[in-house]
Amino acid sequence: MADRETLTGSLRNHSTVAPVQGGISAPAGFRTGAVHCGIKADPLALDLAVLAADAPASAAALFTTNLARAAPVTVSQQHLGQTAGIARAVVVNSGCANACTGELGLQHARLMAQETATALGCVPEQVLVASTGVIGVVLPIDRVTQGIRTATGSMTGTGGGDAARAIMTTDPFPKEHAVSVQTPGGTFSVGGMSKGSGMIEPKMATMLGFLTTDARVAPGLLRRALQESARDTFNAITVDGECSTNDSLFALASGASGVVIDEVSYPALLQGLLAVSHELALGIVRGGEGATKLIAVRVTDAASVDQARQVARTIANSPLVKTAVHGADPNWGRIVAASGRSGVAFDPARMTVRIGGILTFEHGLPNDDDAVQVVEHMKGHEVRIDVSLGSGGEASATIWTCDLSAEYVRINGEYRT
Amino acid sequence: MADRETLTGSLRNHSTVAPVQGGISAPAGFRTGAVHCGIKADPLALDLAVLAADAPASAAALFTTNLARAAPVTVSQQHLGQTAGIARAVVVNSGCANACTGELGLQHARLMAQETATALGCVPEQVLVASTGVIGVVLPIDRVTQGIRTATGSMTGTGGGDAARAIMTTDPFPKEHAVSVQTPGGTFSVGGMSKGSGMIEPKMATMLGFLTTDARVAPGLLRRALQESARDTFNAITVDGECSTNDSLFALASGASGVVIDEVSYPALLQGLLAVSHELALGIVRGGEGATKLIAVRVTDAASVDQARQVARTIANSPLVKTAVHGADPNWGRIVAASGRSGVAFDPARMTVRIGGILTFEHGLPNDDDAVQVVEHMKGHEVRIDVSLGSGGEASATIWTCDLSAEYVRINGEYRT
Repeated sequence: MADRETLTGSLRNHSTVAPVQGGISAPAGFRTGAVHCGIKADPLALDLAVLAADAPASAAALFTTNLARAAPVTVSQQHLGQTAGIARAVVVNSGCANACTGELGLQHARLMAQETATALGCVPEQVLVASTGVIGVVLPIDRVTQGIRTATGSMTGTGGGDAARAIMTTDPFPKEHAVSVQTPGGTFSVGGMSKGSGMIEPKMATMLGFLTTDARVAPGLLRRALQESARDTFNAITVDGECSTNDSLFALASGASGVVIDEVSYPALLQGLLAVSHELALGIVRGGEGATKLIAVRVTDAASVDQARQVARTIANSPLVKTAVHGADPNWGRIVAASGRSGVAFDPARMTVRIGGILTFEHGLPNDDDAVQVVEHMKGHEVRIDVSLGSGGEASATIWTCDLSAEYVRINGEYRT
Repeated sequence: MADRETLTGSLRNHSTVAPVQGGISAPAGFRTGAVHCGIKADPLALDLAVLAADAPASAAALFTTNLARAAPVTVSQQHLGQTAGIARAVVVNSGCANACTGELGLQHARLMAQETATALGCVPEQVLVASTGVIGVVLPIDRVTQGIRTATGSMTGTGGGDAARAIMTTDPFPKEHAVSVQTPGGTFSVGGMSKGSGMIEPKMATMLGFLTTDARVAPGLLRRALQESARDTFNAITVDGECSTNDSLFALASGASGVVIDEVSYPALLQGLLAVSHELALGIVRGGEGATKLIAVRVTDAASVDQARQVARTIANSPLVKTAVHGADPNWGRIVAASGRSGVAFDPARMTVRIGGILTFEHGLPNDDDAVQVVEHMKGHEVRIDVSLGSGGEASATIWTCDLSAEYVRINGEYRT
């Protein structure tokens, strides 16, 4: 599929990076356990996972910029600060966000860390915590701590798939990916899993993302690579323009491969993180609530990357663009209108709009000659929108989003009731 | 209905302002004509209207801030500049936005003014032009000019209702309102009509709004009153966060009542404009595409009005809040989350959230005790959301919006195809 290649293939052209199986379990030095502890009603639904490193690992994380942060976000950030970026484990539950739960919520998040630490034989500060689900509901903490005991008692080096399922809420499918990275200094792996669905416009990270690597890397360098890779992956997607209380992206590096990442080999780590993050981020968009199509909005010829991103984001969050794509309506006028209200200065007479690579707007005028082909493209599962601002600049940016369907409304109108 | 009073009644407490019939025809000195000229397929659907003053009138207008402005916006702004705020008429069509139509579109907008001017015996610069409908389609200009001849040949002083229907696109009902204003210097009237539906988050005016008054007021003062009244009415509503290429708000003052508006009597004019604009703006929200509920989002105890407005706007545009209201789900967590990502600094632990006046969130904790009553309130057609930021400031702002329904998706996924 040529489209697919163009949309998602840009990071695959590096011969040193190759996809492998295993998700977060692919890198050496990690074990996972996942159980149904009883937060979700369905007794077959996994709702708690523990990701543990065999030994203290370098750790980095990015958290939501929402002022209303959930208790696990607060606790994880404190712990990372206290250990200066060393962690043994992340414990995560789905079905309850532990957000807007006050002092009790903080106690519960700390109890989750404590219980995990006891099982692993480390200090609680070496455990990071994440939660996802409904806001404002108190965790059934006894079930959660019992679940942690069960999960930590049955950990394996191949359980990434179960862990990826245990963090799902309204996600239609689990999202995991892994790659091996060949470098002159040896081969290491990067694995990851994520969950998304609704409330997705990460300003710092996606709702929940977890990355592992067996490269040996200091916490500071890991953090830099995480920030840099998130910019064009987890921070370049949007489902509905919402930024949640729980958004968190974690990276753990076990060092078990023996491959040392320093300033020279840093690009290899970045490449590995980008490859995995790219797949996971696009998986979040593909699995967006009610989504039927992946939309790649690319803005070029902008005066700066920030401006390109701002226009792309405005188009990607436009409900009129998203509904038009849903209906395979080649309504480039809505793309022009969204660009024009983005707050970025440009001359509409110099802009061009392409859908599926086909010119639809140029010199301030429509080109509807190829409307039939545009509709054909839009009926597919991946839709490309390319906007050149013609501003004389050469900066560009891509934002990925999904269409807006009646199903999104149904899911979110009925979420709690 | 107590709710209704609280939502919309704040401007009615002035004993000098009383609703009257007639819409834009209520003020003396204006005539209107409306016809089906053939832009809309339905031969019974009006699609062209002319609003004419009997003599040159003071005129003011606010236009879209979208960079991609439609031809009629450009022409109207030029004409207002050339006459320094004097106009005889506004000609408006629905069914075609005359946007993204290049030089030909400008020619067509000027032809509309020319044809109207010829019929009325004035210069073209005294005619303002407005269009609404699909972007990127060229006007069937022969039908339009023929329609202008027919409309101007059959103008009446009581045709406001037909004019309000002639400017509709996907609007489910016409929006018109009028008031009489008693002042020490005499009584004058203010009338108006508007259309909205989709692509509504006016940054300067609603999609199309027309106000008439028979007060005697200089163009500069009329413009000031228009700007001031729009701020808390047409500029305080949002349907979907979109700002269109054609947004325009016009005001014409005939002076036929003989009541002179100066600095002393200015508040009376403002009051009249506010009363009419308030009803018209809320009508746009009530008639928003797919809307089933009017939502009033009031933010109080903010450090500044701008900050209050920014938080209110973020909540009002949140698809998760809008879908929750649609489903009568008292999901205050989404209100907290939207506030937290608004970009305004405040302490979530000090904020309170009320839905229908009922406390749902305080001290960082939920109050679900009264959830049943909240659901009852949310099942109604008007939903109130009150957020106190508890920031120590005393500024407040209200933004009106509607719920997000599957019908919005249907309308906008099928609009052109």
